[in-house]
Amino acid sequence: RINGDRLWASLMELAKIGATPKGGVKRLALTDLDKQGRDLVVGWAKEAGLSVTVDQIGNVFMRREGSNPSLPPVMTGSHIDTQPTGGKFDGNYGVLAGLEVVRTLNDRGIVTEAPIEVAFWTNEEGSRFVPVMMGSGVFCGAFSLDTAYAAVDTEGKSVRDELARIGYMGDQVPGQHPIGAYFETHIEQGPVLEDADKVIGVVPAVMGLSWYDCVVSGMEAHAGPTPMGLRKDALQVATRIMQEVVQIANRYPPYGRGTVGMVQVFPNSRNVIPGEVKFSIDLRNVNDELLNTMHEEMLAFVDKTSADSGLSIKVERVSYYPPCPFHPDCVDAVRAATEKLGYSTMDVVSGAGHDAIYTARVAPSGMIFVPCKDGISHNEIEDAQPGHLEAGCNVLLHAMLERARV
Amino acid sequence: RINGDRLWASLMELAKIGATPKGGVKRLALTDLDKQGRDLVVGWAKEAGLSVTVDQIGNVFMRREGSNPSLPPVMTGSHIDTQPTGGKFDGNYGVLAGLEVVRTLNDRGIVTEAPIEVAFWTNEEGSRFVPVMMGSGVFCGAFSLDTAYAAVDTEGKSVRDELARIGYMGDQVPGQHPIGAYFETHIEQGPVLEDADKVIGVVPAVMGLSWYDCVVSGMEAHAGPTPMGLRKDALQVATRIMQEVVQIANRYPPYGRGTVGMVQVFPNSRNVIPGEVKFSIDLRNVNDELLNTMHEEMLAFVDKTSADSGLSIKVERVSYYPPCPFHPDCVDAVRAATEKLGYSTMDVVSGAGHDAIYTARVAPSGMIFVPCKDGISHNEIEDAQPGHLEAGCNVLLHAMLERARV
Ligand SMILES: NC(=O)NCCC(=O)O
Ligand SMILES: NC(=O)NCCC(=O)O
Repeated sequence: RINGDRLWASLMELAKIGATPKGGVKRLALTDLDKQGRDLVVGWAKEAGLSVTVDQIGNVFMRREGSNPSLPPVMTGSHIDTQPTGGKFDGNYGVLAGLEVVRTLNDRGIVTEAPIEVAFWTNEEGSRFVPVMMGSGVFCGAFSLDTAYAAVDTEGKSVRDELARIGYMGDQVPGQHPIGAYFETHIEQGPVLEDADKVIGVVPAVMGLSWYDCVVSGMEAHAGPTPMGLRKDALQVATRIMQEVVQIANRYPPYGRGTVGMVQVFPNSRNVIPGEVKFSIDLRNVNDELLNTMHEEMLAFVDKTSADSGLSIKVERVSYYPPCPFHPDCVDAVRAATEKLGYSTMDVVSGAGHDAIYTARVAPSGMIFVPCKDGISHNEIEDAQPGHLEAGCNVLLHAMLERARV
Repeated sequence: RINGDRLWASLMELAKIGATPKGGVKRLALTDLDKQGRDLVVGWAKEAGLSVTVDQIGNVFMRREGSNPSLPPVMTGSHIDTQPTGGKFDGNYGVLAGLEVVRTLNDRGIVTEAPIEVAFWTNEEGSRFVPVMMGSGVFCGAFSLDTAYAAVDTEGKSVRDELARIGYMGDQVPGQHPIGAYFETHIEQGPVLEDADKVIGVVPAVMGLSWYDCVVSGMEAHAGPTPMGLRKDALQVATRIMQEVVQIANRYPPYGRGTVGMVQVFPNSRNVIPGEVKFSIDLRNVNDELLNTMHEEMLAFVDKTSADSGLSIKVERVSYYPPCPFHPDCVDAVRAATEKLGYSTMDVVSGAGHDAIYTARVAPSGMIFVPCKDGISHNEIEDAQPGHLEAGCNVLLHAMLERARV
């Protein structure tokens, strides 16, 4: 069994970097704070005797050797970047649970056959740069290194420059790093486990996701003298689409999701009719056919709205991955470890994307969920119980040991 | 008759300060660029032999003495601050037309009985700081100097500090400056004159205006795992109100106006359900009873939307002035000058607020409109014809001379 107090202490220590007044964390990918967080975790890994390699997209692999050098590593990991108003656990828990597994093996002097590795992947959140889950996406070939490098934040700073600036542009070619099996522990980020009063979620699959940037172009004009009938108000047209995004999701329950999270209005002055509105659309479902239907309905609504209003509307898909069922071997390993340890459990489909959906393309992968308070995540008040985090880490330990062999 | 080429040259010269790539001007109130613009105009005034005084809110008065020192000045003016994506003419024309009147009087050696003054008022646009028409509002006692000083921009910088920083916090107590009559020339900022193919708009009245800040508070949560039924999506609720603002205006034609120009979404991340949305509301009408009805309907809709959605919604009125009919003497002076000069003309109600609505509280006031291209203003492509600007300036000259007596 792992040391729950040590795991908690590490989580609280890492959460100091970028701590926000409301108890959350703001540590956006490839900022100075991200560098500080990376340095802290890498320092801990070295103290635990791990060797560290960094690839060209800044993914970090921290390795504990096994007895059989010809076996690929059994890997765990997640990310340490956060949302602009994020919490202490999202991603960070998965990385530090991996470190706690290694510390526990060290304490007990356990030698595994396969090496054990703990990874953290660059820019999982996608808040500062799209595509989301960038590091693992490049690693598994979902998109190219150049695509990722070219991504810019709202200030025009690129991934390539920011990665070099914080000193995490490594040598290793992404993907040239073998993985035998991959496990990821994570808070659920939804209310299902808590509602059902279960401690461990076995994750059979992750919902597919489609992200879009939408731009409505109207005509800026003065809010006073311009008669209502002569306006080309980009915001009034954009809000129709924003509402439809939710209606589309409501038509495909229980796993349909539709969200507009980001809006920019130009010129954003109170007495100017908006000339341009940019906003994001996030559609999800666990069934790829339904996700495609949602995609088609959204495009059709945009076309109709453009025709009705006479305004030009552009929609561009900026991220997409299909629903991802996990490998039966890994799902079974998680289920078996949970039962062995005697934790209450249920299956939970993940609504959030995780690096594991990309590792699943190159190695058998699986995930372990633990409850978070009120199902709230991507919020500074995100919270989780030490006992649940400890339980998830114990399941991780046993699932990894089952695959790595002692 | 005034010198149209000189007027045009001065307009183009001033428009270089804060010029934008698309041919507009960005010279927000109390920025470094505003200071440069102020310095240029003050320099021109001094070259023309005018004496310059500045009051405590940064209003600038440039004076040409008359033969009778006991008479209050006949004043003209406007503003030189612009919208974030503003044009070359809005406000600037009114100030430089005044300067051109003075230059013309100088050229001809004309001595008026009453002094002639040209003013520019601080922060007319209200884009960076509310209340709008701040300088003239403080001058006429619509709100206090302390209220104006305390106003902050989105970065938290105050009017008091910014005014001191650019060196335009004068000594004179606002309002302690007599005005005999006030005229303001301005581009129409709407399509009426152009549609009717008229050169001069005589302005009988300005629409009243109500501005609000509205804040909808929901609950930030992750866009993937949070089921649709459990969301408190602040944007979905805010967009209902944004659409109703336009519906309300449509119910009170032909002068009803409803605009949402400014929106801020928190935390503004594409996979976070918005926890808070702030936005502006701008309602106008030329009839105060109708404007009040629009106000009441908006508040009632907000209450209903809050009750329906269960989300808290705050609305605060941040600016208000009632519809303003101008003084018959000044309206007649404009009409008479127009007829004397033989320009085509019609009456045009102003949908935009102007400093003249505040001067109207302390002195007989009137306005002169000229057409602008496609009725477009508060836009970088704002444009006006040199011949129209010259005509408006000639009308100003003769209306002022009629009041100031030669
Ligand atoms: N786990 C997580 O927050 N991933 C970010 C991608 C997503 O929005 O699902
Ligand atoms: N003329 C002008 O743009 N004034 C600003 C106040 C308003 O929005 O009417």
